[in-house]
Amino acid sequence: MAKRPDEFALIERWFAPLSGSGSFGLKDDAAILAVPGGLGSERDIVVTNDAIAETVHFLPSTDPALIARKAIRTNLSDLAAKGATPFAISLALGLPPDWDARWISRFGAGMKADCKAYGIDLNGGDTFRSPGGAVVSITAYGHVARGRYASRLGASAGDVLFVTGTIGDAVAGLEIARQGESPTGPQRWLEKRYLLPQARVELAPLVERYASAAMDISDGLVGDLEKLCKASGVSVEFPAADVPLSRQAKGLLSAKWRGISLEGLLTGGDDYELLIAVPQGSAASFEREASNLSVAVTRLGTLEASKGANAVRLLDEDGRAMKFKRGSYRHFGEMDEHGWE
Amino acid sequence: MAKRPDEFALIERWFAPLSGSGSFGLKDDAAILAVPGGLGSERDIVVTNDAIAETVHFLPSTDPALIARKAIRTNLSDLAAKGATPFAISLALGLPPDWDARWISRFGAGMKADCKAYGIDLNGGDTFRSPGGAVVSITAYGHVARGRYASRLGASAGDVLFVTGTIGDAVAGLEIARQGESPTGPQRWLEKRYLLPQARVELAPLVERYASAAMDISDGLVGDLEKLCKASGVSVEFPAADVPLSRQAKGLLSAKWRGISLEGLLTGGDDYELLIAVPQGSAASFEREASNLSVAVTRLGTLEASKGANAVRLLDEDGRAMKFKRGSYRHFGEMDEHGWE
Repeated sequence: MAKRPDEFALIERWFAPLSGSGSFGLKDDAAILAVPGGLGSERDIVVTNDAIAETVHFLPSTDPALIARKAIRTNLSDLAAKGATPFAISLALGLPPDWDARWISRFGAGMKADCKAYGIDLNGGDTFRSPGGAVVSITAYGHVARGRYASRLGASAGDVLFVTGTIGDAVAGLEIARQGESPTGPQRWLEKRYLLPQARVELAPLVERYASAAMDISDGLVGDLEKLCKASGVSVEFPAADVPLSRQAKGLLSAKWRGISLEGLLTGGDDYELLIAVPQGSAASFEREASNLSVAVTRLGTLEASKGANAVRLLDEDGRAMKFKRGSYRHFGEMDEHGWE
Repeated sequence: MAKRPDEFALIERWFAPLSGSGSFGLKDDAAILAVPGGLGSERDIVVTNDAIAETVHFLPSTDPALIARKAIRTNLSDLAAKGATPFAISLALGLPPDWDARWISRFGAGMKADCKAYGIDLNGGDTFRSPGGAVVSITAYGHVARGRYASRLGASAGDVLFVTGTIGDAVAGLEIARQGESPTGPQRWLEKRYLLPQARVELAPLVERYASAAMDISDGLVGDLEKLCKASGVSVEFPAADVPLSRQAKGLLSAKWRGISLEGLLTGGDDYELLIAVPQGSAASFEREASNLSVAVTRLGTLEASKGANAVRLLDEDGRAMKFKRGSYRHFGEMDEHGWE
């Protein structure tokens, strides 16, 4: 086992260089939550927290750099879905019993890469021993124009429902990671979508400007859309064929690779794409601006007044409502692992 | 095993009632960090994070209400030491494999008791399965007058060093909890000081007004004072007999109960009292105002210009500098468990 640095060396070497103004080089027990350029009276601070644990959310063999980056990105995805531009994170890091210098250097490299990529500071945190394996709990901070926080409660009948990117890549990628065989090119692309999701941070200003409601898709398109519709008291119906799939996922689907099914793609987790409801009158502007940012957004349908139990109806090729075995709601047996609802 | 509530029921029943404005009843993935009454342009938000894990910081048999309350208090202690008045917390809760309705109801009762006692909201969080036992990671938010955040770096030669309350009760209480025999009255008092520390929140406005530097004592008086002195570039010397001890701790000390020693009390962890440096000219006012709040504060000495390696010298009855086996700095073997430094 490589030598373990002491705690001071660890923080000095890996974490202090990621700190910004207000955090005293991580030499104090707390930090001032300093918004770069100042918050101003017209903006609010938005805060979110996601925690991930070894064996539950990632395998002991996972590259610690990817653990760090995915932990950051799941949080930034939540902020983007609220229209909030991120500026800082805090990290509570539970170190696994067998951690060593190599583990922390990979973890630190992942933190550094994504703090840089997203322009965010590490403003503090805590390290502790975690007997059951690594635990990474991140709190992320963003800012949004006052009154423009996009909750999942604000959608109205008549709003247009959009989704970003492509759906189901991550659940296919998880299956590819699990099977352990040497992956093809398209399979590698899907696996990366699972291991290192993007966070749609670049879309935050458009969510802020246009969205009546939004949320990120962490537990599957169908289930998360149902949460949004129920929270807002609306329904929606659209052909399943309208859901954007990647070329790579379509390839597995048409080859019926290892039981990959349309249902699996539509209900699998870890997409980290965004569901965004936009009032009819500004839907075209939103689409145009997203296109200017080179982010694919797809219209899924128009929200209607709530029709009770089945808030979300996806139609098959014959126009019949599809039935999904995985519901919109999960017990702790397969616990929601992506934030409170 | 008592029945487990599903996640929605758990949050609805135990956590949503603790939420305040800006957090949508915990029905969203994030929250607006709303300072009651508004932040104003003359105040800053202060953030801190402490995480605790089963078997490392508490035993599996610990009452979950006490786990919750101690997790909150260690964070509020950090805020108070910075002069910050708390207003909210976020919670990342890793549930142990054997959690059940009783476990969560006790945990929730502890959260509720301390959110109420300290007037703070729960603004969100995350729940996840934790194979290695319960993990409680809390991020706490406070506010402080701009420019009055009390770091550990700001003390100057000539400042008077104060400590609150009494020192060493918690480490004696831990020993009492460990021995498992039926405790006497004074022993029960000490055990409670370990299991349920106070957080000196009521002193935050005085720290804000008077302190040139401050920190809470979580890893032992001697070690933490050395951190403060080194960070500020000062030294201090005072008789060990000046350190305030409780009547109960003095009782164990004079009875030489189970090897309890003065060194043990002065270097043991979990006090959650505050070290506060105050400029000479306002030391008397600070003392008077603390007395008005019925918080005991004791003068330990006057800070001097740094004398190099030994920043902290406690003198024995013969006026000789005491030597401590436990240093001011600890490796991960006995990891600092109370925040970054």
